[in-house]
Amino acid sequence: MTIVNQIVLASRPKGPPTAANFRLEETAMPQLPPSGLLLRVLYLSLDPYMRGRMDDAKSYAKPVEIGEPMQGESVCEVLASDRPGFSKGDIVTAFTGWRTHAAWSAGPLRKLDPKAGSITAALGMLGMPGFTAYSGLMIIGKPRAGETVVVAAASGPVGSLVGQLAKMVGARAVGIAGGADKCRHVVEELRFDAAIDHRAPDFPAKLAAACPKGIDVYFENVGGAVWQAVLPLLNTYARVPVCGLIAQYNSAGPAAGPDLLPRTMRNVLTRSLTLRGFINTEFAPEHYPAFLKMVAGGIADGRIRYREDITDGLENAPAAFMGLLEGKNFGKALVRVAT
Amino acid sequence: MTIVNQIVLASRPKGPPTAANFRLEETAMPQLPPSGLLLRVLYLSLDPYMRGRMDDAKSYAKPVEIGEPMQGESVCEVLASDRPGFSKGDIVTAFTGWRTHAAWSAGPLRKLDPKAGSITAALGMLGMPGFTAYSGLMIIGKPRAGETVVVAAASGPVGSLVGQLAKMVGARAVGIAGGADKCRHVVEELRFDAAIDHRAPDFPAKLAAACPKGIDVYFENVGGAVWQAVLPLLNTYARVPVCGLIAQYNSAGPAAGPDLLPRTMRNVLTRSLTLRGFINTEFAPEHYPAFLKMVAGGIADGRIRYREDITDGLENAPAAFMGLLEGKNFGKALVRVAT
Repeated sequence: MTIVNQIVLASRPKGPPTAANFRLEETAMPQLPPSGLLLRVLYLSLDPYMRGRMDDAKSYAKPVEIGEPMQGESVCEVLASDRPGFSKGDIVTAFTGWRTHAAWSAGPLRKLDPKAGSITAALGMLGMPGFTAYSGLMIIGKPRAGETVVVAAASGPVGSLVGQLAKMVGARAVGIAGGADKCRHVVEELRFDAAIDHRAPDFPAKLAAACPKGIDVYFENVGGAVWQAVLPLLNTYARVPVCGLIAQYNSAGPAAGPDLLPRTMRNVLTRSLTLRGFINTEFAPEHYPAFLKMVAGGIADGRIRYREDITDGLENAPAAFMGLLEGKNFGKALVRVAT
Repeated sequence: MTIVNQIVLASRPKGPPTAANFRLEETAMPQLPPSGLLLRVLYLSLDPYMRGRMDDAKSYAKPVEIGEPMQGESVCEVLASDRPGFSKGDIVTAFTGWRTHAAWSAGPLRKLDPKAGSITAALGMLGMPGFTAYSGLMIIGKPRAGETVVVAAASGPVGSLVGQLAKMVGARAVGIAGGADKCRHVVEELRFDAAIDHRAPDFPAKLAAACPKGIDVYFENVGGAVWQAVLPLLNTYARVPVCGLIAQYNSAGPAAGPDLLPRTMRNVLTRSLTLRGFINTEFAPEHYPAFLKMVAGGIADGRIRYREDITDGLENAPAAFMGLLEGKNFGKALVRVAT
């Protein structure tokens, strides 16, 4: 008999999540829904946005309820289908949550062609993280040849694509990452023009040195101290797509002083900056085909490279996710749930 | 013999300016420059941006040097002309600074037709403040019929025009002003849909009640506590043209905690907000004619009204300016330098 597992939100974190906030449960095998699919999860995607779903706060998406499975997208094998066009053995992406098996009856669903390339890319470069990078950079940031683009978490799936797309349009790409290994990867493998370790004591000075003509596009996915170092380097009319704030996701309650808001607002005013928050779904209907074309083309001809950080076993997803929030992953974080 | 006066920056303020930061000087009558004009100042415009010029800080414009005249635009009478197309007795606007007489040889210059209407409107609704309101609202804010537009300093020249333009495009206009008199003026004379006194103890609740469908465009010219009250009311995809931050112009050094930046950034992210700083000159070449047409038309047919707050005598300009920074003016602040 198949053992069916899921990981539920056991309690809401105060600050960084701990193992106690998650609970591994055995559950019954779901039924094949009418017009739906029965799925076996192969790979689960771990993404920073999941931290927000653990809080009971107003956001663009509803929080996960206590006792409900953690949400997430995965690559799955179809075990049974009552849906035209889908057959047993097909590989699809679906929002199954953190579980080994799931019933699909509604929501996004995409059939993959395993012969066309890696199926896990559908959770990374050719999926939500990739489209997030594309839409923030190309639609909001609009880098021009010769401009300077800076992105943090540059060895992760979003940051690595931001820099590689910036290079494809002729801009200078500067990455920020944590530690020498990641910085080396960003320059040597991903071919950014420079990579700066945000843990270096003289990080602001090193970032300034890597951006001799200032910063025209800063793709914001971390916030915190990195933003403070970026702010004085932003050029007049710089664009700041705000895609994530991982440095502040784990903070509980109001932050201690000094109040850094006046400094940011003064720079917004005096340098005519644009800050634009976005969720990738805003742009999907209009821009997804152009994204797939550009990124699939870049992967095919070698201009876009990526790295995955795969953890084995659904039971290890909480630890991998907690590591992701601390920047311990090196590449797109995935959990191999089954093979 | 004509007495020629000017007001110079005597010292840089730390916090709010005081009388000691200004000095009234007698100076020599300037010479008529080759191809230039000799001007007698009639009305000097006082504007919040002048506070920034008193600081020795990097901004979009150079600071005033110690001992130099305060900068500013004025309406002048031409005393003598060596410039084709300009004659003795013409009325012009020019950046003369805070002085009774000035030589003009370069820079913006506009001849006014006194028969066409009030010459002081060229420093208000039909000048820099008016174009600031127009460009921030119409080019960045882009209000649609039925949306809600909020603006502070609503009885001032910029705020009053923002609300009246919002009404012209079919949006709901909510003004924020200081005190019952100004709020009454904003609703009864300027015909905003509502006006809220930011000094009221329950200001955030009153603002929320005046915006039952949330806020789609917040024209930011004050910052501080008003921004904190606006933030939770902003709708997804709200636009925030950032035109001024008068509440923080006088603050010296880093602000005390709590740190309010994470709250603002979290809202930018989760509600897909756009914050866009701007200086009106960015848009002038392309949009000035459309602005003049819309606003002159609105004044002519009575849909746009305005109020002026006129102080007599150049020697009283510092006190009037200090009052402006505290919101004591009621309408566009002008100094009548000569008649």
